[in-house]
Amino acid sequence: MPLWGGRFSQSLDQQAWQLNASIQFDCRLAALDVRGSQAWAGALGQAGVLTPAESVQIIAGLETIQNEFGEQRFAFEESDEDIHTAVERRLGELIGPLAGKLHTGRSRNDQVATDIRLWLLETAPVLEESLRGLQAVLLKRAENDFGVIMPGYTHLQRAQPILLSHWWLSHFWPLQRDSQRLGQLSARSSVMPLGAAALAGTSFPIDRSALAAKLGFNSTSANSLDAVSDRDFAAEFLFWTALTAVHLSKLAEEIVLFTSAEFHFFELDDAFATGSSLMPQKKNADVFELTRGKAGTLIGRLTGMLCMLKGLPSTYDKDLQEDKLAIFEAYDTLAAVLPVIAKALETVHIFPEIMTAAVTPDMMATDLADHLVSQGVPFREAHDLVGLAIKHAKKQGKILDSLELAEYQHISPFFGPEIYQVLKAENSLIRHNISGGTAPEAVKKQIEIARQALSV
Amino acid sequence: MPLWGGRFSQSLDQQAWQLNASIQFDCRLAALDVRGSQAWAGALGQAGVLTPAESVQIIAGLETIQNEFGEQRFAFEESDEDIHTAVERRLGELIGPLAGKLHTGRSRNDQVATDIRLWLLETAPVLEESLRGLQAVLLKRAENDFGVIMPGYTHLQRAQPILLSHWWLSHFWPLQRDSQRLGQLSARSSVMPLGAAALAGTSFPIDRSALAAKLGFNSTSANSLDAVSDRDFAAEFLFWTALTAVHLSKLAEEIVLFTSAEFHFFELDDAFATGSSLMPQKKNADVFELTRGKAGTLIGRLTGMLCMLKGLPSTYDKDLQEDKLAIFEAYDTLAAVLPVIAKALETVHIFPEIMTAAVTPDMMATDLADHLVSQGVPFREAHDLVGLAIKHAKKQGKILDSLELAEYQHISPFFGPEIYQVLKAENSLIRHNISGGTAPEAVKKQIEIARQALSV
Amino acid sequence: MPLWGGRFSQSLDQQAWQLNASIQFDCRLAALDVRGSQAWAGALGQAGVLTPAESVQIIAGLETIQNEFGEQRFAFEESDEDIHTAVERRLGELIGPLAGKLHTGRSRNDQVATDIRLWLLETAPVLEESLRGLQAVLLKRAENDFGVIMPGYTHLQRAQPILLSHWWLSHFWPLQRDSQRLGQLSARSSVMPLGAAALAGTSFPIDRSALAAKLGFNSTSANSLDAVSDRDFAAEFLFWTALTAVHLSKLAEEIVLFTSAEFHFFELDDAFATGSSLMPQKKNADVFELTRGKAGTLIGRLTGMLCMLKGLPSTYDKDLQEDKLAIFEAYDTLAAVLPVIAKALETVHIFPEIMTAAVTPDMMATDLADHLVSQGVPFREAHDLVGLAIKHAKKQGKILDSLELAEYQHISPFFGPEIYQVLKAENSLIRHNISGGTAPEAVKKQIEIARQALSV
Amino acid sequence: MPLWGGRFSQSLDQQAWQLNASIQFDCRLAALDVRGSQAWAGALGQAGVLTPAESVQIIAGLETIQNEFGEQRFAFEESDEDIHTAVERRLGELIGPLAGKLHTGRSRNDQVATDIRLWLLETAPVLEESLRGLQAVLLKRAENDFGVIMPGYTHLQRAQPILLSHWWLSHFWPLQRDSQRLGQLSARSSVMPLGAAALAGTSFPIDRSALAAKLGFNSTSANSLDAVSDRDFAAEFLFWTALTAVHLSKLAEEIVLFTSAEFHFFELDDAFATGSSLMPQKKNADVFELTRGKAGTLIGRLTGMLCMLKGLPSTYDKDLQEDKLAIFEAYDTLAAVLPVIAKALETVHIFPEIMTAAVTPDMMATDLADHLVSQGVPFREAHDLVGLAIKHAKKQGKILDSLELAEYQHISPFFGPEIYQVLKAENSLIRHNISGGTAPEAVKKQIEIARQALSV
Repeated sequence: MPLWGGRFSQSLDQQAWQLNASIQFDCRLAALDVRGSQAWAGALGQAGVLTPAESVQIIAGLETIQNEFGEQRFAFEESDEDIHTAVERRLGELIGPLAGKLHTGRSRNDQVATDIRLWLLETAPVLEESLRGLQAVLLKRAENDFGVIMPGYTHLQRAQPILLSHWWLSHFWPLQRDSQRLGQLSARSSVMPLGAAALAGTSFPIDRSALAAKLGFNSTSANSLDAVSDRDFAAEFLFWTALTAVHLSKLAEEIVLFTSAEFHFFELDDAFATGSSLMPQKKNADVFELTRGKAGTLIGRLTGMLCMLKGLPSTYDKDLQEDKLAIFEAYDTLAAVLPVIAKALETVHIFPEIMTAAVTPDMMATDLADHLVSQGVPFREAHDLVGLAIKHAKKQGKILDSLELAEYQHISPFFGPEIYQVLKAENSLIRHNISGGTAPEAVKKQIEIARQALSV
Repeated sequence: MPLWGGRFSQSLDQQAWQLNASIQFDCRLAALDVRGSQAWAGALGQAGVLTPAESVQIIAGLETIQNEFGEQRFAFEESDEDIHTAVERRLGELIGPLAGKLHTGRSRNDQVATDIRLWLLETAPVLEESLRGLQAVLLKRAENDFGVIMPGYTHLQRAQPILLSHWWLSHFWPLQRDSQRLGQLSARSSVMPLGAAALAGTSFPIDRSALAAKLGFNSTSANSLDAVSDRDFAAEFLFWTALTAVHLSKLAEEIVLFTSAEFHFFELDDAFATGSSLMPQKKNADVFELTRGKAGTLIGRLTGMLCMLKGLPSTYDKDLQEDKLAIFEAYDTLAAVLPVIAKALETVHIFPEIMTAAVTPDMMATDLADHLVSQGVPFREAHDLVGLAIKHAKKQGKILDSLELAEYQHISPFFGPEIYQVLKAENSLIRHNISGGTAPEAVKKQIEIARQALSV
Repeated sequence: MPLWGGRFSQSLDQQAWQLNASIQFDCRLAALDVRGSQAWAGALGQAGVLTPAESVQIIAGLETIQNEFGEQRFAFEESDEDIHTAVERRLGELIGPLAGKLHTGRSRNDQVATDIRLWLLETAPVLEESLRGLQAVLLKRAENDFGVIMPGYTHLQRAQPILLSHWWLSHFWPLQRDSQRLGQLSARSSVMPLGAAALAGTSFPIDRSALAAKLGFNSTSANSLDAVSDRDFAAEFLFWTALTAVHLSKLAEEIVLFTSAEFHFFELDDAFATGSSLMPQKKNADVFELTRGKAGTLIGRLTGMLCMLKGLPSTYDKDLQEDKLAIFEAYDTLAAVLPVIAKALETVHIFPEIMTAAVTPDMMATDLADHLVSQGVPFREAHDLVGLAIKHAKKQGKILDSLELAEYQHISPFFGPEIYQVLKAENSLIRHNISGGTAPEAVKKQIEIARQALSV
Repeated sequence: MPLWGGRFSQSLDQQAWQLNASIQFDCRLAALDVRGSQAWAGALGQAGVLTPAESVQIIAGLETIQNEFGEQRFAFEESDEDIHTAVERRLGELIGPLAGKLHTGRSRNDQVATDIRLWLLETAPVLEESLRGLQAVLLKRAENDFGVIMPGYTHLQRAQPILLSHWWLSHFWPLQRDSQRLGQLSARSSVMPLGAAALAGTSFPIDRSALAAKLGFNSTSANSLDAVSDRDFAAEFLFWTALTAVHLSKLAEEIVLFTSAEFHFFELDDAFATGSSLMPQKKNADVFELTRGKAGTLIGRLTGMLCMLKGLPSTYDKDLQEDKLAIFEAYDTLAAVLPVIAKALETVHIFPEIMTAAVTPDMMATDLADHLVSQGVPFREAHDLVGLAIKHAKKQGKILDSLELAEYQHISPFFGPEIYQVLKAENSLIRHNISGGTAPEAVKKQIEIARQALSV
């Protein structure tokens, strides 16, 4: 039985009913809906709309329902259109007509907005913790793998030597920004719509501030029309999940690369790799591929939410019901992905020799140019001179550190015997000793900063 | 038990397993997976890979499984990673080690691609029928409501009088294009990947053409790498659902407008309207708002699919597993929405007098200008003269047909006494007698064309 | 001439060059690029990489270039691949080979990331001011139009009476959240990548903190790989523009509705409406329709950016070049839309009588139910009783306040003679005196809060 | 001067004007707009609305304008709101007041829809040709590089040996589908809206079929409301560009991989690679990275269009003006990318030895399993036995073909001495002789089919 039947002479078409019903997904809000209703019953009592006894009785009935949900004993009925209806129907069974007083002065419009915000406030910390967990793994790897040299890439071309620790940390910082964003959006979402009623505000003297405090909100909505309409928190949350997933997709892409036969820098632990039903030798990075693929899905969920909101008139329109499935799926995705990624990275085996061997002398070309600069050659000219050396070496089938000094000096007298030291990867690393750079000293400082960032 | 355990020394981490598993949604492909496997067992038999007896026994075992699915008796186990694994596991229980021969020469890569394409071929006609059903309602309304005059709008401003039938049909033609698109994408998707195996093609002498014919495909894939990678059909299907939903969202927007108190052109039947839990007088077009909102969600699903595919290397990557949930949700959405919309429109009450009353004389301004044109006034000048008449009328607090002839002639001598006929809506309609226009005669022809389009 | 030709034996294909070149859009960064280069030349001087004289000479040459840009005298050449190349080419013309020292220790990777962040820091305040300007108009209208009663809608159905001021403010608060978000993302983007060089950090002893301070950044990037890769700021900015545009699209939708003949609550000033080339009587809300349509485009731009970023390996890939056009278009859109919307709303004419007349007695149904509640009737029952009254009235062709008291009492003895007062809109308003509600007293407080929020 | 000023007492605000104007991008439609207007003037003549002399004079005036556009001599004025206005303004300068008769019986609503469709019909063949050009290159490479063996990958893990020709062709077929889709959407878009006027159909007796034939359209729109509203062709075109770009992004991803130092299968010709401003040794696949990145942007453009369309009421709303920039950008992107990609692939150097060397014996594991199957071992068991062999080999630090026969037979007696032949890549290839498979014979047939597909 819907809550709104009074004036209708005919009940809703069965298929329309099913299209309209949200119980199949908003049942997830059950505990929060009950909690919100209990607080509301309390507020109605304090406002004198309910007698103290009525208030107590309703709250007790709701407690029973809460337990039924907790113990998965709650029996939904065919006719339960949504979670709010289900709870009120059950309350009626438990405490009789008095149940009909619970909905006084509120509407499903402010009720559902309150429920979802409560859900967000409850789940954000779970994601925050998973995020922190992944960051902790990245930091630990940076600490444990300190000293391993690997090629740094741009355009997927080997560019310059870097520390593996530096690479690990390059995936730490995007998550640090994500963490900050999550904190800000949580704080911004902590606004209670309850009391906005359908759109105009309730007409009963509810103390909204006290009610907000009771429910754990930071503040109350300033405008009742906006309160029932505002889904910024859902859009922000979906953007957050999409951008976080994009960060994970970049990490995933590199893990897929690094675990390929061609790179062979990493090997996944058996517990985090999967095989092929046809090719017995395969060891696939499925969980990382899924992570990458799900980034696409989450971007789509964000798009879908914004597109749904576009052009709606204000206050409540039923279109808004599309909000829940999207944020639930987004949450579930990241809640499932983050811990798996963390454990997979914690246990991934590395092949330091292979990584180091991949650092070829060509990659010190910039160092060579910088060295010429330190001899007074303008950078642009130095860059060209080194380009010539590379071209010459290639023609000879040689690489930079196997060219004779004479060959170098034929190109420019600024090349001296010290260049063979310049072409060593370890020396290159040491030279990049700038804040944020890849020199061992700089990376140690970075580790320290990351540690502090994480411990906040 | 996964199908790929052989070389692994450790089983998959529990959370990784859950992330990886697809059984919770690909179980939906159960019947098709069994059908595909039966055909495959037949083909293996014909190729001499299985003995006739083996082939028969496997097919019979699969038939048992098919029945278990049909009667919802199939017992999934915790360890069933996906539908393919579940079926093979169960087959082993039923027929013993012989079950291990079923997967000969194929891979889950070509198997799942085959399953989804079968699913698409099976569901497209369902959508086609629902689409046709909605078109039939629109056509029937155009026939039944013939003669009713209403305002036509541009920019949501009243523009010119039109026939309600013309408006009904304006929503018929987009669906006609959708129908054509659906047919083309179905035909293009009717390509069998089976036989591509993991990526290189099977090494057993399967007659792929015969197999395709058996399964109802039009043709076989031309390249095995492409066969396991290609998700064009999923992207096309999602685009189709998104564009169709956009068409429905435009219709929905207008129903929401027309059922508002301000327009009051239509009233929904009680069976397709919903009320408010707080405001007893409300009658909301929830199903149309949901339709509009779901267009946003479906656009997001399309985006998500394309974004997932972007930048993937060819053949199979696990990212592709994201395809199924998206197309299932898209299908379910339209399969639920289309029949409800159709019935809601079939039963919607119209208020012809209110519509006709909304056609104010100002809306014949273009007719007036066209009339001047027929007197030899250049259109641009005629347009300006009528603009002056409107401005004058507004200043006098009058409307076009209450201005005196003298007032008109003061503006231009080309205005004659016949203009009061020109300002009548029925005469306006009659004048727009061009193919595709709103004149009764033209709309009758249009109805005829629509009838033929629908009967094809 | 590209900056990277040294080792190549052949120059780039002409079409490939054109595809690759970014000068047609990154020329917009000219002034900022020069500013960044000047600061870099200063830093190279302080680090002893350049002599003081060299540093001064380069800075002076750049100043000349800055003036050329400022006075639109800078002559781009065919061969200018991007703005960085153009500036260095011109510097060479002005100061000779010394120009070749400017690029020492940096890369276009950190340079362009720095340029775009500088652009963002420069443009965010412009948007902030436009946003504030629109908020100020909304607030002023709320103040000036105080007392006007209009229907509040949910599902586009008339629901309850509200104050027009309350409606104006319902569009103020989303922008207030936008303003907060813009501040946070600006602060988060104020991180200087310069010094990250290509990917590994510069090898010259630059004082990055001093350089950041000089350029107006709050801090320096913590990891050089992340520094050249991070486009979070672009994604955040695009999300911000998309969500802000969605807010404007909702406002626009309502303006389009309210200026329609059917609502006729508002009429746009001639300076902000457009006509029809065919229909002289039309007055279209084009600027609002464009605002609504552009929300779609901006959502697409956000999608495009996230999708581009998905799955990229870290550091710099050329894909990132797609960032600029998107954020430039997004900025231009809102920078153009916001002031126009503000002025259009400032000058929009309102029809208070029409709005008030649209508040029909049915809309006080909730008040009636609430009144019964105050008599001790459980809300659910009260809701049903009022539903019966509405049904009865409808059957009689009456509305709520024209039913006789006897008819009411036939439904329930709780209906007393005071209900005719309850059915008056002004009394309804007064009753919704909750924080955030629509009662005049509550809206006055809300105006005060909005005033404070705006003055911060 | 706008075309619609008559009744307005005040001209449009300057900023609103700028927001509203579309001349900066719709000027691109100039030639088509003139062509459409010439046809319209002809049709007005044939309908007797214009005298033959008037019709001729207008057409001649338009011809002059056409030439001005062709020779880039057309002088736009500040006051030209859009291309239609500019043309009519100029026509007035050339032929005087008679110009005011051109717009008789049409509206910018049907005019602009006609212009864009003409544009699409004109540009689709250009894209088709570029697409065909790229396919031709892929086919030619498949022919020329025949015989080269390379690893096939799934999950970016080496899976089974394939022919390089097979890989080239795997990128041919998606483009073949794109080609088919382009043909279908072009045909579906070839519907003339002209004659729909503003929304209701023109009131002059235009022969629309003759007009459509003259302009090269296949048919005329069936419903005038739909005619001015329908942007399906734009959405379809954008979907087409997005999906085609996704196909190119997959190709691009693999080129980026194959030209990396780790794979080193391919090396770009200098004419299609770019260097680094900092690292002289780099050779980057910029054009492919841009191709990949632009796929993201195009997906966003599609999203933006669908999102703009969502929820619009029918007929013309100004939101629709957002259509042009999107389709122009999409076209320009693919028109620029396709030929560059084609030439870059035509000239890419391959390293057959490196590719072949990457085919390790492990990759014949499936062949080994299939071999056991042919000995009567059930596939599932064969798969496990080979898995044990791999595990054993790994433990011994061996690979599959260096295991002794005894070691094999210790695992299973089904392993015979012939397995060393089975482990050869060439033999593996030969065995995958199924239609669409990678056996040389099958690939030859595939080349033949591709050749036929291309020559159609």
